[in-house]
Amino acid sequence: MSRMMAGGRNLDTIAAAGIITLSLACLHVTSLKSQLFTRLGGLRYTTEPPISYKTLYFDQKIDHFGFLQDGTFKQRYLVADNHWQQPNGPILFYTGNEGDITWFCNNTGFMWEVAEQLGAMLVFAEHRYYGESLPFGQDSYSDVKHLNYLTSEQALADFAVLIQNIKTIVPGAQNSPVIAIGGSYGGMLSAWFRMKYPNIVVGALAASAPIWQFPDMVPCGDFYKIVTQDFAKSGKNCDANIRRSWKAINNVSSSGSGLQWLSEEFSLCTPLKNKNDAVSFKSWLQETWVNLAMVDYPYEANFLQPLPRWPIQVVCKYLGFDSTVSDEQLLHGVAQAAKVYYNYTGNAPCLNTSQTATSSLGALGWFFQACTEMVMPMCTDGVQDMFEPEEWSFQAFSDECNSFLGVRPRADWAGTVYGGKKIGSHSNIIFSNGGLDPWSAGGVTSNISQSLVSIMIPDGAHHLDLRYSNKLDPPSVRAARALELKYFQKWIRQAQKSTGTGFTMSKDRKNSIK
Amino acid sequence: MSRMMAGGRNLDTIAAAGIITLSLACLHVTSLKSQLFTRLGGLRYTTEPPISYKTLYFDQKIDHFGFLQDGTFKQRYLVADNHWQQPNGPILFYTGNEGDITWFCNNTGFMWEVAEQLGAMLVFAEHRYYGESLPFGQDSYSDVKHLNYLTSEQALADFAVLIQNIKTIVPGAQNSPVIAIGGSYGGMLSAWFRMKYPNIVVGALAASAPIWQFPDMVPCGDFYKIVTQDFAKSGKNCDANIRRSWKAINNVSSSGSGLQWLSEEFSLCTPLKNKNDAVSFKSWLQETWVNLAMVDYPYEANFLQPLPRWPIQVVCKYLGFDSTVSDEQLLHGVAQAAKVYYNYTGNAPCLNTSQTATSSLGALGWFFQACTEMVMPMCTDGVQDMFEPEEWSFQAFSDECNSFLGVRPRADWAGTVYGGKKIGSHSNIIFSNGGLDPWSAGGVTSNISQSLVSIMIPDGAHHLDLRYSNKLDPPSVRAARALELKYFQKWIRQAQKSTGTGFTMSKDRKNSIK
Repeated sequence: MSRMMAGGRNLDTIAAAGIITLSLACLHVTSLKSQLFTRLGGLRYTTEPPISYKTLYFDQKIDHFGFLQDGTFKQRYLVADNHWQQPNGPILFYTGNEGDITWFCNNTGFMWEVAEQLGAMLVFAEHRYYGESLPFGQDSYSDVKHLNYLTSEQALADFAVLIQNIKTIVPGAQNSPVIAIGGSYGGMLSAWFRMKYPNIVVGALAASAPIWQFPDMVPCGDFYKIVTQDFAKSGKNCDANIRRSWKAINNVSSSGSGLQWLSEEFSLCTPLKNKNDAVSFKSWLQETWVNLAMVDYPYEANFLQPLPRWPIQVVCKYLGFDSTVSDEQLLHGVAQAAKVYYNYTGNAPCLNTSQTATSSLGALGWFFQACTEMVMPMCTDGVQDMFEPEEWSFQAFSDECNSFLGVRPRADWAGTVYGGKKIGSHSNIIFSNGGLDPWSAGGVTSNISQSLVSIMIPDGAHHLDLRYSNKLDPPSVRAARALELKYFQKWIRQAQKSTGTGFTMSKDRKNSIK
Repeated sequence: MSRMMAGGRNLDTIAAAGIITLSLACLHVTSLKSQLFTRLGGLRYTTEPPISYKTLYFDQKIDHFGFLQDGTFKQRYLVADNHWQQPNGPILFYTGNEGDITWFCNNTGFMWEVAEQLGAMLVFAEHRYYGESLPFGQDSYSDVKHLNYLTSEQALADFAVLIQNIKTIVPGAQNSPVIAIGGSYGGMLSAWFRMKYPNIVVGALAASAPIWQFPDMVPCGDFYKIVTQDFAKSGKNCDANIRRSWKAINNVSSSGSGLQWLSEEFSLCTPLKNKNDAVSFKSWLQETWVNLAMVDYPYEANFLQPLPRWPIQVVCKYLGFDSTVSDEQLLHGVAQAAKVYYNYTGNAPCLNTSQTATSSLGALGWFFQACTEMVMPMCTDGVQDMFEPEEWSFQAFSDECNSFLGVRPRADWAGTVYGGKKIGSHSNIIFSNGGLDPWSAGGVTSNISQSLVSIMIPDGAHHLDLRYSNKLDPPSVRAARALELKYFQKWIRQAQKSTGTGFTMSKDRKNSIK
């Protein structure tokens, strides 16, 4: 990400101040930005098998939908073909989302684990404007003019053209069936990729893909309801005490000494100084709980933060008070809870409340996407969820986007171009969702047709199924992965039937297809 | 078209000279341009019922795929709802192609004839950059920068957004199933519309839509083979004499007196002066034969030219010579034949060989589209067709586009974005094709699946099925229209089942659905 960071420097002049302000003023944007980001990357476990891949670059058109801009950029993609059965063996194609593709590559163990069984080539394609795939190099984020080609449609076209190229230049790949795989926004892309380019991919696994988290598709409050439920079931009084904590923060932060006490209690790197800081602090806490809901995995894992297994249960151990607790006692518990997330290793000297806003310039790319196509309404009421009430206002959101980026979101476009709830005529897409994952609120959680299927993983968080298998995996995610594999095999067989190009499968492989 | 003409004036400065040169140098472009255009419009027969519609305008985004350009333009669309069964009655939506929408409206009698039976609203949507729907007013064609939003993807997005808007603002239309209908390029658009936006349209009739007339999909020579066959079967020696005529023109035009004789024989408005003129003259003749193949209708019709019924048979009456004929005799016959096309009424004082190049500025729009996305290879060999041999060279074509318009076509893009031959996963599209129509060479002429069906009309020319019914219609086109109607009814029923919103159909209508 270092190159992107460099690329985004100019941005300070146009938006960085705005973003910080925005993160105070607009919870929706902040949470969107951080939620979609904090799930990314991190270190891999040493028990996971070593992986190796080639890093390649493809000259991609900057603008697929216009001919005035005929320039190209280097799109990065990673290829692992050591298990690939040539000719005609399948290709599993990761539709990269808003970040460095090597992170996704390292965090999508499922693909690595099924490659041998399928005789598959693995390809991980980086999304334009992220990682190293910068259409205008270090100017890519310099202004809205340069950001103009950052859209999901362009990204899908990149994937389509890249696959056509691979099929042309790689001997034996011409008739290889390609399956799109992605998680989160990458999962949305994989689903949309199959919808829009069924000529290119025979099927798609859309893991934890909130394709319905758009205006008028799902209730805006469901996301935070799920976060709340995760806490409610992870410890007695846990959600109630978080709900109570906002008022406690308001009370305590009304005085200078209170702010100081709060800053010390939370070991904040930068002490809170005024009411605005306190608002920002609450946003940061809210993001923390959301992030925990997303990464509530059944084993120790290291995302942006190293975490214990079932981290919300650990968090909730500090939040079991009954209603007689004082504000200070309550907030002491909240601080302990937050430190589970921010300081599980005990190595953090202090907690940085601006961390999510500045940890990755990829966040800026997503911020632009949220302010253009990816309009994802969210709201809270403080009753069905444990957060302070905040309504969704498209107009306010649009005005903020316009102030800070000079673009206005189009509320209905994603629904028009990607079909919204009317996607029943498509085929061969698996929508997998975790019951613990707040993004399942915007996901497809029941079957649409025989070939548009939903797989629910009740005790799974954000795209747990895409991760490496683990001895602590619950049976539901093991079953999900097995079923996903079965669908892959079915799609591959369908494709080979239609082209008459079966690749040589080992007897073992053949038997595994049903 | 007058406003578009005005809008295009500036273009003289950048491309008009180029286009004239190009029409000499590059047969492919010339023929594309004219072939797709000369099928348009013309006067309606007085025996046809009067039609009436409202002319409306919708504020359409100039750029659906980028957010920098947030301007809008007035997209024109025509609405006839006098037969519409409210609420939930279907909408037949004409996906306008490269010309003034009122022409298509007047020349798509089929829609007017089935509206009552279906209880349907008719909508004819104008394609951006044609007719009155100019994104930048009179500057729309001023340079490539302004032309940058002239793509089929933008046009499809226009249609999608327009329909969403109609459903929002017209009471009773919210659940109306929409069927896309189009002919020629408009037919391609209707097929692609269903493929890309199955959430918006429940099905599509793609009449005479050469969706496979793209690189590596069909042999480049098939188009002209069909033209040749039309002449071969319309009169003894007819194709052979046209094949022979090119050499005869070369012979005669090698001298000044020969050029003069030729000019007089053909009553040319502008006499031929040199070899280049003779080359241009041959292009013009070739286009004439192609146009005749496209409009070889079984009754008198008036397209760009008024023509007798089965005009090729009439033409061939002048081309029955045996092989002993002299060059002059042969060319006298050819001149008489050409005058069938250009002077059937006897009112033309002279024949204008630059006519197709200058008759409509819409041609320039199509020229731009051909030089960007719509790369349609064509070639002749003089053996299987009756034309002078000319190979297809993408590179030469690309270079010419670059010289004259400053854009380069992308050979593979249409196939990538619209699926090429791999469209089997889509549904509810009728591809109708006329056996006499050279564009059937690039059409879908056999069933792909149960719901991607081909209807062949062996004695039909270019989208005969979309025209008003006529007592001279062959049974094949009557049957085609009846079948198309049956599919419409089936799609409407499917849609109403899935939304649970049957509109009130008269008993008669219900019975007609099977």
